[in-house]
Amino acid sequence: MTDQSQHLSAAQFAPILHRFRRQSPLVHCMTNDVVQNFTANVLLSLNASPAMVIDAEEAAQFSGFADALLINVGTLTAERQQAMQAAVTAARQAGTPWTLDPVAVGALTLRTTFCQRLLSQQPAVIRGNASEILALAQQASGGRGVDSLHQADAALEAARQLARDYQTLVIVTGEVDYATDGQRTFAIRGGSPLMTRVVGTGCALSAVVAGFSSLSGDRLLNVASACQVMARAGEQAAASSAGPGSFATAFLDALWTLEVDHETH
Amino acid sequence: MTDQSQHLSAAQFAPILHRFRRQSPLVHCMTNDVVQNFTANVLLSLNASPAMVIDAEEAAQFSGFADALLINVGTLTAERQQAMQAAVTAARQAGTPWTLDPVAVGALTLRTTFCQRLLSQQPAVIRGNASEILALAQQASGGRGVDSLHQADAALEAARQLARDYQTLVIVTGEVDYATDGQRTFAIRGGSPLMTRVVGTGCALSAVVAGFSSLSGDRLLNVASACQVMARAGEQAAASSAGPGSFATAFLDALWTLEVDHETH
Amino acid sequence: MTDQSQHLSAAQFAPILHRFRRQSPLVHCMTNDVVQNFTANVLLSLNASPAMVIDAEEAAQFSGFADALLINVGTLTAERQQAMQAAVTAARQAGTPWTLDPVAVGALTLRTTFCQRLLSQQPAVIRGNASEILALAQQASGGRGVDSLHQADAALEAARQLARDYQTLVIVTGEVDYATDGQRTFAIRGGSPLMTRVVGTGCALSAVVAGFSSLSGDRLLNVASACQVMARAGEQAAASSAGPGSFATAFLDALWTLEVDHETH
Repeated sequence: MTDQSQHLSAAQFAPILHRFRRQSPLVHCMTNDVVQNFTANVLLSLNASPAMVIDAEEAAQFSGFADALLINVGTLTAERQQAMQAAVTAARQAGTPWTLDPVAVGALTLRTTFCQRLLSQQPAVIRGNASEILALAQQASGGRGVDSLHQADAALEAARQLARDYQTLVIVTGEVDYATDGQRTFAIRGGSPLMTRVVGTGCALSAVVAGFSSLSGDRLLNVASACQVMARAGEQAAASSAGPGSFATAFLDALWTLEVDHETH
Repeated sequence: MTDQSQHLSAAQFAPILHRFRRQSPLVHCMTNDVVQNFTANVLLSLNASPAMVIDAEEAAQFSGFADALLINVGTLTAERQQAMQAAVTAARQAGTPWTLDPVAVGALTLRTTFCQRLLSQQPAVIRGNASEILALAQQASGGRGVDSLHQADAALEAARQLARDYQTLVIVTGEVDYATDGQRTFAIRGGSPLMTRVVGTGCALSAVVAGFSSLSGDRLLNVASACQVMARAGEQAAASSAGPGSFATAFLDALWTLEVDHETH
Repeated sequence: MTDQSQHLSAAQFAPILHRFRRQSPLVHCMTNDVVQNFTANVLLSLNASPAMVIDAEEAAQFSGFADALLINVGTLTAERQQAMQAAVTAARQAGTPWTLDPVAVGALTLRTTFCQRLLSQQPAVIRGNASEILALAQQASGGRGVDSLHQADAALEAARQLARDYQTLVIVTGEVDYATDGQRTFAIRGGSPLMTRVVGTGCALSAVVAGFSSLSGDRLLNVASACQVMARAGEQAAASSAGPGSFATAFLDALWTLEVDHETH
């Protein structure tokens, strides 16, 4: 399947990054407790505006202001589920695109049931690892928490099916990331193994994807560009890092300084 | 109005910083989920003792131990509102000064109603950006989440009125920070634009202000000094930073090493 | 009492660290809001797999997958108490070792009652500072929040008694850390005063201890090794740090790169 996927050139994603920074989308993040701070800092380093509003009533109100909404079920509770549902409903009414990060779906009942329910509510994008995308596509996952047991390309077919069935975009991340609408598929290479040693790089990617999904134009190209931006920053950061601590610091700096306009890569 | 505001000299704020570090106030922070870690690290870097106690019963108990209390409504929920109210009530009974950070007040109903209710409960200090102070002062704000749409000096008159009406101190932060009791006003310059690219610098300032409000002496001078300390650390950090990641790291280091006693700045 | 405690040699703890990194235990952390991110990053830097599952139903389910469970009561609420209890019950049924970090026990009622109740539920390890261990052992503590008012050696006798009474391991941390089963005691030296200026170093140690408690072999030696690993990383990080910000970054890097196999220290 992978031979059908397209490469993403700097000429394609550089102007999209430029627009993102200039428009500074307001991204409403309903995400897990562990990664809220890092997620906000990643968005700020890309010149976006993060906002974490979590009360059900306020979250519904806030969907009227926000450019995009992220739902990440990493530390789901029954109460948060209600607030997330209220926000999704309001976002749909306001026409605000929303992105689903189905953390560890398949392994745990509450979130699996909730994610299945959300699937029918027109997410603009779904971003997960191979286990999560396979679980969402109701294939056996054998997932062990948040770690992926499958390579991204093994889940690619499931992603394409999911995208077609729910008329959404699906991003499967791993050593290679894939972004697909069920017909077209972009393959994004790059990144660094150190990204798996800093908590929240995947969750932050979902927030960035949510932000990029709010830009006008080809949404699949936009969210694939989000993946490419993060992969590039990861490569740059890894080159100057001694370990996960300095990597996280350098990663935020790289998002801030990333300059891709004149590259031919 | 700004021409009536005073400059804060190093000779004024250096001994106050010195006392703060020596006394190491215990600051009870009931703050939003996103910034708890950074807030604690900012206080620790200034040699203070942060404590985040959030259960209603425990928070009320803890007000008997703490030197100061911070209420930040950034990720307010109905449940947290009850715990915060319990803490404020207990703080007032114990004579513990409490500081209000009215994040995004005006834009969202739950927190707006709650902040209005808190106003009448004698906060020692209120710290917000221009939109938030204007909203609190019941003027039109047009706020778009947590970002300020007004310059700090535009909200200065509202701050002075608020301070007089509620017999409190008000700090409006922006490119220039103002601290006022309604009569006297200090203007604090410095800082760095990078401070807006790291989540929680404003929220952490409120926690530091809460800590400085517990010192004996001229409270307005004390909390204006808190602003000046943070602005100085921001300047120092920006001078050695490549982006938001290294800035956040350098900022904590600068708070730790900041030495202002012999300056004439 | 301290003269009866043993030193831990590199020859002892190096192979244990090696096994820990190779096995990459999945550590279920139910910890306080302030330190979740740092705790996860500490575990990831040691090549372990952190997971923060907090809903009562999901937490109970997750105990079947996890290699170890951490209960940290730093930001306890009535609701979290129920979820933690469900996780402990499930962990015991599954034979998963669980570790208790009784943050500020003794000073606040809700957590004190809860920790006393947990004591009878066979924790594999208890990790606290001197005040906390003394409070748990029902001796007067006079604790003022999370800061320790006693040196670790003053609480050593209480720790030994607690370990014997509840057939558990107790770690008392301070300038010197002690790990005891009530009979044998290891004394771990090292670390850095900067560790007290970064929030969550103690809480993260408890998570690392939980992970090491899941290894086969001599559990006391394993968890004492966890303390030694953290102390070594702290020393290394302090040597290249300008303050708490750069220390935290360097600490994660040191955990990642720590190489002790060939030392005779």
